[in-house]
This record gives sequence, C-alpha cells and structure tokens, in this order.
Amino acid sequence: MSRINKNSRIPLYYQLVDIILNEIEEGGLEENSQLTTERELCEIYEISRATVRQAIGILEKDGYIYKVQGKGTFIAPKKIEQTLEKFYSFGDQIKKMGRKATSKVLSSEIIRCTGYLGKQFNCSEEENLHKLVRIRYSDNEAIIYEESYLPIKRFEKLDSLKIEKDGLYNYLKKKYKVKLDYATEVFSVVVTEEKVSSYLEEKLGKPAMKVERITYENEKVIEYTESIVKGDKFKFKIFLKNI
Amino acid sequence: MSRINKNSRIPLYYQLVDIILNEIEEGGLEENSQLTTERELCEIYEISRATVRQAIGILEKDGYIYKVQGKGTFIAPKKIEQTLEKFYSFGDQIKKMGRKATSKVLSSEIIRCTGYLGKQFNCSEEENLHKLVRIRYSDNEAIIYEESYLPIKRFEKLDSLKIEKDGLYNYLKKKYKVKLDYATEVFSVVVTEEKVSSYLEEKLGKPAMKVERITYENEKVIEYTESIVKGDKFKFKIFLKNI
Repeated sequence: MSRINKNSRIPLYYQLVDIILNEIEEGGLEENSQLTTERELCEIYEISRATVRQAIGILEKDGYIYKVQGKGTFIAPKKIEQTLEKFYSFGDQIKKMGRKATSKVLSSEIIRCTGYLGKQFNCSEEENLHKLVRIRYSDNEAIIYEESYLPIKRFEKLDSLKIEKDGLYNYLKKKYKVKLDYATEVFSVVVTEEKVSSYLEEKLGKPAMKVERITYENEKVIEYTESIVKGDKFKFKIFLKNI
Repeated sequence: MSRINKNSRIPLYYQLVDIILNEIEEGGLEENSQLTTERELCEIYEISRATVRQAIGILEKDGYIYKVQGKGTFIAPKKIEQTLEKFYSFGDQIKKMGRKATSKVLSSEIIRCTGYLGKQFNCSEEENLHKLVRIRYSDNEAIIYEESYLPIKRFEKLDSLKIEKDGLYNYLKKKYKVKLDYATEVFSVVVTEEKVSSYLEEKLGKPAMKVERITYENEKVIEYTESIVKGDKFKFKIFLKNI
C-alpha cells in the first residue's frame, strides 16, 4: 500500500488524491464499488478529516467518484475515450469498452429541407428529409441523444427496427450500398435543455458535448447528425502533427 | 426582408429563428449590437408575443443571442472555430478572427515531477517541472485558464514577460530551439470550479471545454498543458476520413 509522506513538500490532500487515482487506474477499485469511508481513510493514512474531504472534493469534481445521498461515495465508471482519426461509430466504441451498446428510435418523420438544414444539405425547399431521433445506451444507461437527418432522394425509406438492431451505418451500407467518403465534426459545449435532459434521465442544465457530424458520399451530404453526449461519459482524443 | 409564411407546415417560431439566424450570418446584425425588441418583432412579422418568445428562447439557448438585465437582447460574438488538423495555437486563431490576443502569467513556480504529472512526463520524483499558470484574452475578455508544465531538464529558465509578449511556443522556439514533433489532445466537458470561474469572470459551475495537450520533441514529452476554455467561446472542427 502506498503511504503518505508527511515530510514531503507535496500537500497531504494531493498525495491522497494520487493514491486513490492510482488504485482506480490499476484496477484495485472497481467501477461503481464503494470507496473507503472518510473515517477509514483518516485512520489508514493518519490524516485529518479536513484533508480527506479536500481530496474527496477534488476527485468528485474531476468525475472519478460520485456520491449517492445516504449511501456513500462510489467509483465512477471510466469515461469512454474516442479517438478522432478516422470515421467511427459511438456504438462500436461502447462495445470496445466491454459494454452493451443499444439504441432506441424515439421518432422517425419526414420534414422539409429548409432553413439551417437546407444550408447543410444544399437542397431546395421542395426536397424532404428523414428526421430520426434516437437515444443511445451504454449498459442500459442513456448517454447520447441524437437527431439525424438523411435525404429522401438518397434513402427512400428507413426501417427503424432494423436501424435499432444493426446501427444506422450498418443499415445504410446493407440496404443502400452507401460508401462513406469522409465526415466533418464540430465539437462544442452545451447545457442540456429540458427535453434532452429528460431523455438522458439527468438534471436540467448539465454540461454536455454537442457533436455535429456531416457525412459525405461522392461529395454529396448524405447525413447531418447532432449528438448531445452526456458530459461525464466520453472524452475525445486527437493527434496533431506539426506540419 | 424575409417574410413569415403562415400557410407553411413549418412552425412560425422556427421560421423566425431561421430569419434571425440568416441576418446574423449574412452580417446584417453585428456582434454585440441590440436585437430588435420583442414588440417590434411581433409587429414586423405579424405574429404573437408567445411565438417571438419561443424563437428568442431557442436563439438564447443555442448561444446566438444573450440578454442583459434591464438593457435588452444582444447578438452574441461568434464562436471561434479551431480546426484540429495540425498543431495550432489559441493565440493565432484568435488573431485570425480579427481579435486582439493577449495573455497574462498569473504564476510561475517550480514543482516536483510526481503523481499524475510524473506519469505524463515519465520522470522520477527527483526531477522538477515549471508550472506556469496563464489567462488568455480575446479582445480583453478572459476566455481560457491554462496550466502548463514543462521539464526543467529541457528548459532551465522561463521568462514570464517574454512568454506574455511572444506566446509560449514562439518563446520556446526562439530561446530553446524547440522543434515540436507532434501533440495529442484530449477534449472533455467540465464545469468550472471556483478558482477558474473567478479568473474567467463568470458564474461558478458554467460548462467549459477541458483540453489536455501533451507535446513531444524527439519522442520526449516537453509540455503538458491543461486548458479550461469558456464553453461559449470556441468550437473545434475535425475531418474524419473513412479508412
């Protein structure tokens, strides 16, 4: 067991943060298992309650642990790290983390290609789009609210049940022989609005990552998707060359 | 002037959102200028106050406009779009937007290379790091809180005044002939804590983008920086190939 060094220049609470982080990362503390109580941490490391609270506060703020009223403090599930190099699917990444990836279609309707959407698709007002609203789950927890728009001209009909079963991209590849060329994504920070918070089963106004994806096939836009990703569930990694 | 079509299937509030967005994007409405009042919008478009309020609510939530108590509603400055293809500097991007980019060094100290930092730099506890805390401004508004760590072994001394004047990377290139190879960045969503909110002059608990950058020179880590970027100031764009 790591020990706290009282002669170190490093503050005691910071040493405790490091010890707990190490245990989480080395797998000694499992996701959703209970953290040693404050009183026990005081005894084990021979430090004051105030020091322990300071460390716990930092770990909670950074999302490594979470508190449940009347139950105690628990180890938070790790954020899913999505590398942004090539085309990816949230579903595949959730599966790679060893979790169950499912989705539910909330609605599927046909709307006019107008206004902001008209600009994305560069289409006329006479054209129509599918609007598909989905919730995506990791191990039965709702983590992404997603609105996708797809041109009717390219995709005449969409089968919600098959999309739920196979995932959107697999469905489009199978049914419409789609050949994805490339996509652009814009990441920004938002606070969840009422509708989205209720679907994601969280408090109103929680921070989330908004990901706007535009997908191209033969230089034509074939998908515009706006995903609202729960703030504490994902992180996104990129690689920058110095060219 | 665009008009509202009362026979359209598109909801009236949504048509108004589109009209205002168009005016913002086409430059008809300048940043920080006042938006036409609710009463005027009712008269111009012959729609109800409730419809106008619904449209204003959406534009405010999406960050296109902001309200000032007792003064009215104003056009929000555009988010700065940072493309994530190659190595970039926040300062350069702010300048590209035609704004003044400055920074202030809050503190510069020497700390042990331990714990979480030790892992990033793969260094022993005997080694030391510079810890540099900066605030970055766009047109005199604080928009980024930044903590940078740099190994003493590679950079013996840092001159805060020169870093403020030239920017960190320009300073390192000039003084230490640094040749940046590549960097990795991890993006996640956080809420600002007390210290950071006060430096960024905003309310506690506002959403922000956390960007963790690790920079390499000859396969060695020469910088670890944690930037807390105000949520409504930046968006990040990437390009995904289908390989």
